Amino acid sequence: EEEITPEEVKSILHQFFFYIFFSKDSLDYDNSENQLFLEEERRMSHMGFRCLEIRRWVICGLIGFLTGLIACMIDIAVEKLAGYKYFAVKLNIEKYTELGGLSISLILWAVLNSAFVMFGAIAVAFVEPIAAGSGIPQIKCFLNGVKIPRVVRLKTLVIKVFGVICSVAGGLAVGKEGPMIHSGAVVAAGVSQGRSTSLKKDFKIFEYFRRDTEKRDFVSAGAAAGVSAAFGAPVGGVLFSLEEGASFWNQMLTWRIFFASMVSTFTLNFFLSIYHGKPGELSSPGLINFGRFDSDVTLNYLSFFPLHFPGGVLGALFNIINYWLTIFRIRYIHRPCLQVMEAMLVAAVTATVSFAMIYFSNDCQPLGQDNTEEYPLQLFCADGEYNSMATAFFNTPERSVRSLFHNPPGTYNPVTLGVFTLAYFFLAVWTYGLTVSAGVFIPSLLIGAAWGRLFGILLSFIIWADPGKYALIGAAAQLGGIVRMTLSLTVILVEATGNVTYGFPIMLVLMTAKIVGDYFIEGLYDIHIKLQSVPFLHWDAPPTSHWLTAREVMSSPVTCLNRVEKVGRIVDVLSNTSTIHNGFPVVAHTRIICGLILRSQLIVLLKHKVFVERASSRLSQRKLQLKDFRDAYPRFPPIQSIHVSQDERECMMDLTEFMNPTPYTVPQETSLPRVFKLFRALGLRHLVVVDNENRVVGLVTRKDLARYHVGKDGLEELHLAQT
Amino acid sequence: EEEITPEEVKSILHQFFFYIFFSKDSLDYDNSENQLFLEEERRMSHMGFRCLEIRRWVICGLIGFLTGLIACMIDIAVEKLAGYKYFAVKLNIEKYTELGGLSISLILWAVLNSAFVMFGAIAVAFVEPIAAGSGIPQIKCFLNGVKIPRVVRLKTLVIKVFGVICSVAGGLAVGKEGPMIHSGAVVAAGVSQGRSTSLKKDFKIFEYFRRDTEKRDFVSAGAAAGVSAAFGAPVGGVLFSLEEGASFWNQMLTWRIFFASMVSTFTLNFFLSIYHGKPGELSSPGLINFGRFDSDVTLNYLSFFPLHFPGGVLGALFNIINYWLTIFRIRYIHRPCLQVMEAMLVAAVTATVSFAMIYFSNDCQPLGQDNTEEYPLQLFCADGEYNSMATAFFNTPERSVRSLFHNPPGTYNPVTLGVFTLAYFFLAVWTYGLTVSAGVFIPSLLIGAAWGRLFGILLSFIIWADPGKYALIGAAAQLGGIVRMTLSLTVILVEATGNVTYGFPIMLVLMTAKIVGDYFIEGLYDIHIKLQSVPFLHWDAPPTSHWLTAREVMSSPVTCLNRVEKVGRIVDVLSNTSTIHNGFPVVAHTRIICGLILRSQLIVLLKHKVFVERASSRLSQRKLQLKDFRDAYPRFPPIQSIHVSQDERECMMDLTEFMNPTPYTVPQETSLPRVFKLFRALGLRHLVVVDNENRVVGLVTRKDLARYHVGKDGLEELHLAQT
Repeated sequence: EEEITPEEVKSILHQFFFYIFFSKDSLDYDNSENQLFLEEERRMSHMGFRCLEIRRWVICGLIGFLTGLIACMIDIAVEKLAGYKYFAVKLNIEKYTELGGLSISLILWAVLNSAFVMFGAIAVAFVEPIAAGSGIPQIKCFLNGVKIPRVVRLKTLVIKVFGVICSVAGGLAVGKEGPMIHSGAVVAAGVSQGRSTSLKKDFKIFEYFRRDTEKRDFVSAGAAAGVSAAFGAPVGGVLFSLEEGASFWNQMLTWRIFFASMVSTFTLNFFLSIYHGKPGELSSPGLINFGRFDSDVTLNYLSFFPLHFPGGVLGALFNIINYWLTIFRIRYIHRPCLQVMEAMLVAAVTATVSFAMIYFSNDCQPLGQDNTEEYPLQLFCADGEYNSMATAFFNTPERSVRSLFHNPPGTYNPVTLGVFTLAYFFLAVWTYGLTVSAGVFIPSLLIGAAWGRLFGILLSFIIWADPGKYALIGAAAQLGGIVRMTLSLTVILVEATGNVTYGFPIMLVLMTAKIVGDYFIEGLYDIHIKLQSVPFLHWDAPPTSHWLTAREVMSSPVTCLNRVEKVGRIVDVLSNTSTIHNGFPVVAHTRIICGLILRSQLIVLLKHKVFVERASSRLSQRKLQLKDFRDAYPRFPPIQSIHVSQDERECMMDLTEFMNPTPYTVPQETSLPRVFKLFRALGLRHLVVVDNENRVVGLVTRKDLARYHVGKDGLEELHLAQT
Repeated sequence: EEEITPEEVKSILHQFFFYIFFSKDSLDYDNSENQLFLEEERRMSHMGFRCLEIRRWVICGLIGFLTGLIACMIDIAVEKLAGYKYFAVKLNIEKYTELGGLSISLILWAVLNSAFVMFGAIAVAFVEPIAAGSGIPQIKCFLNGVKIPRVVRLKTLVIKVFGVICSVAGGLAVGKEGPMIHSGAVVAAGVSQGRSTSLKKDFKIFEYFRRDTEKRDFVSAGAAAGVSAAFGAPVGGVLFSLEEGASFWNQMLTWRIFFASMVSTFTLNFFLSIYHGKPGELSSPGLINFGRFDSDVTLNYLSFFPLHFPGGVLGALFNIINYWLTIFRIRYIHRPCLQVMEAMLVAAVTATVSFAMIYFSNDCQPLGQDNTEEYPLQLFCADGEYNSMATAFFNTPERSVRSLFHNPPGTYNPVTLGVFTLAYFFLAVWTYGLTVSAGVFIPSLLIGAAWGRLFGILLSFIIWADPGKYALIGAAAQLGGIVRMTLSLTVILVEATGNVTYGFPIMLVLMTAKIVGDYFIEGLYDIHIKLQSVPFLHWDAPPTSHWLTAREVMSSPVTCLNRVEKVGRIVDVLSNTSTIHNGFPVVAHTRIICGLILRSQLIVLLKHKVFVERASSRLSQRKLQLKDFRDAYPRFPPIQSIHVSQDERECMMDLTEFMNPTPYTVPQETSLPRVFKLFRALGLRHLVVVDNENRVVGLVTRKDLARYHVGKDGLEELHLAQT
């Protein structure tokens, strides 16, 4: 077998993800405070600002409500479809158990699975490839400030929801929780902008919010609402959004995000309770619910200790295998029909493996009085008993997790659990990265719960131990080892557990899993983000980067424009494909900075032909308004689509009114950590570097900062895709 | 009665709080990146940074552990002392109930209360006045970036702990939860600096952390640990710290804060469980525990609605009365012995009122089988019954809250509750602001729980209702109406309740309480902060402030220093009492900015006589190190204490090495919201305003920004104490 060099990987990836990062762009969290903007803000009364604030709250409420509804819809659809499927297969198995010819049941199961998955995979592969996977890496990038095209469109949402229903009903080793985060984000982007490009419909509301700053705030709320609906964890949702997105913590914003999360979990809870016929109970705050744990954990604290390490190691193993699989997929499985076929193959294999394990397992358990199993399979067991392996496979993964947490000691045979862990681990690794929309949270929890419970059972031979608690800690360890989230994951798990006493052991296990796992390889999402060479900014500059200054980091020379510039020059600058800059310093004589103008603003100006003809007075020109910029947001036309005649090229454009007259600047001796802090804290897109006399000497962009990171031998420089 | 004018109030306050704000100063969250600092950072290896990080974690663990221990100690001490007291009084009452002469019991009770309170009040009034109250306003200010002297000293902690034990045991209408936040903050400041000024002991560890940036991070962790220990709410603690303190959200920092919180609640839980003899249970995650609520709330959602408004109104009433009381106290009760006497008077009155209400109430309830009451008072009730009013008063407030939440319907008579609410409301108003260390959380919860339960009882005549749930919502409403915290309070209450289903109604009720209450007056903590004219920075600039620019906001003219400056001039500038600036721009010829140097740095330089003698070479002078600055931190000597001879005045000082060569600057046309955002997001203390050619034209400080706020008629300017 040939070895793949990193360069080769990179070139393959560039090819593969070309459609994604060709137009990858940054979000600007800094308002362009030009004259138009200031005039509008100054015109607005105190009451006007209050109305805006109320509108923000209403939008957040709507985001929460719609996200909750979507989660509810997915849950009901999956339950129904999976129910029909398991019912049919169970009947069939029961029929053929005595007759012989169980292979017919196997074929039925495999075909049903493949059919479900086929629909989902076709939708994703042919209609909207960005809807593949859990969407969490994409949302992480978006919240970080990287604009990925089509990630928050209505079409993506529809395919995502349809895809996740198909893949979960198709019995893949996936969860429906991850995609909720993406779904919430799309809902937020749609509602807050008051229009949909996919539907070509503009409701003419919320026009004030049509800019990056506001949109990103709402998308944070949407992501939080998604987490909240998925796990019944409103606080975890808020912390997830903050961990991934926030640059500057703003109290009112956080409060609104929390409101969206609360509404979302409440909506889901309310409608699911009605659906389950128990409207008074409100017992389903999230798609997954760990059930209630009692508080009796003291004695277990020390015995949880051995569970700390397998999480990190197994998580890293998962990530390493998945990394190579992803590379393999990029090389050989890049055509949509191949992708659909792979997904169908995995579905069929999942069914086969499950069937084989149920078939060969002879772990019979007595059927409980309360009959907690929904589809108890008798198979070759005696009457009044059921096949315990079937419980794990013949169920949605959420239910399996819950049984591992809460079934009384003795429900599972250690060998069953061991085999199950192994089989499910490899199925889950193979499944993540398929062209279906699906999450990795639940399979991770399931793997961890299985080996955690196994440990608990083995331990209970020595001391008394409730294996369900070890299942919980194992689940946390495995999930932590794979995704490496910390604070928000702890809170999500504690909220899903509903018992704060478990917070401490869960936190410790997540910390260890992260430390151990990071020793081998990064987290799963980070791997996938890195594979796409996204200029992702971390929280701090690398610690050993104090010897770098803005002078070394910045891009230079930088194209500057004059305050009153020839149209021809602007068109040439924008058309120059070798330097795709998105912001241009505006300078007075001797390159003294006097403003910053964005490519998008220039394009709107060119489109509206805001030219100062040499002879005519200024008054003749049509007054451009902020509304014109907002209408063009967020998809500004490319420069090629704007026709500028030869005559017009000779005209001048006065940028004074449109440029941001007070861009943030740093002197060129500023150290990298200082530049980084300013850039990150304010969510900037461009930072102008000036010399002592305020003359422009360079421009720092996201890419310039993202390429430094800490490697094995200290500071390393990455090569990133052009932004 | 004469009317007090606002000016008069202000002058009185200035007099009264003089000792506080005379040396009030800002914290600097921006590292002074001078050459010394950069050299040190550059010398440090990757491993060095990792060790620092580990040390930070260790400190956070220690902070959590010690805070948990202190909370545990307070709890046990209070339980013991209050137990003895109630036992003695109960015996006495029982003795005299039949004999007659219950007035002796009253006197005994009043004397016991007053004695306890006297000790606490004497300690606070004579030894450390800053330990009075809950300490939350002070910690809010500290986290906001205002340095208040002596607030995080060991002596303050000792007095605080002693004071809170005395005042709770003394039966005042106070809680022991608020002071925990202050205690945690002091622990953090002490541990992280590795030395104590009160003890004059320097452990020579953690010297790297001796600067504002690091110290504030640790104090955040301490405050969070305090909240966590008080309410068993680690996530709420983190959110409290972020809400009050964070400027820039940093993932690792938040994670550390969370760690401290978790350790703190776990420590408390662990030791209290051992103390209660149930080491396996871990059932006391916080000082106050609301007990478990079931999830059956749907039908109640609408019926909670009427509870939304009284919270805001009663909260505002509380704050208004307390405001006038505070003014009265400032005018007439400013001598320590008077303060002690007032505290004793309140303690005696509290006992008397309680006694009278128990005496005159004839609300007898049958003694339950399980005997949940610890000190059931029979008084004039029949055998096998107890006086229900006595339950509310004859108990620590925490227990009373819990009984209001959880006692079965029918335990309380509506009239009893009504009278109790009224009496306790006025007692609590009177108590807050006494010269004792005590918190307002629990009394607020108790008042709210009482009227909430009253509402529930009245409602249960019409529809079925569990009054305990109304007590919970009422408690949240009342507390929200008084303190006006939002996000963190919701999370704290949800965590204390242990049921996420209540999150939604609690959030709604807190929102309404804030909106209704803000209509009348600000929150209790904000009132007290405002009374001290602290330059407190809110999250955003006032919305209608876009027409203000840096030019209008800045202080000017500003005293600049030359890169090489005469010692005499520096001494004169520092000694000039009319402009107590803390930072001075360093300029080259024609006032072009080339750095910023702090008063504290200049003082250290003067103290070490880092002078360039005109003739001698530079090499002769002793090389100053970062360590010299750290040793002087945080209490730099005043300029008056430094002797500079006439000869030395003629020497020069070279500031190049010590100044921050890359201070943040803004052009003078920058709008106020933009300046505000930069200042707040980066936690600055000084922001230099420059013109087009980078010449210094002004300096924006915290005070310049804090004085703008939104009043009834739009933007208003406050007059703040000199910082």
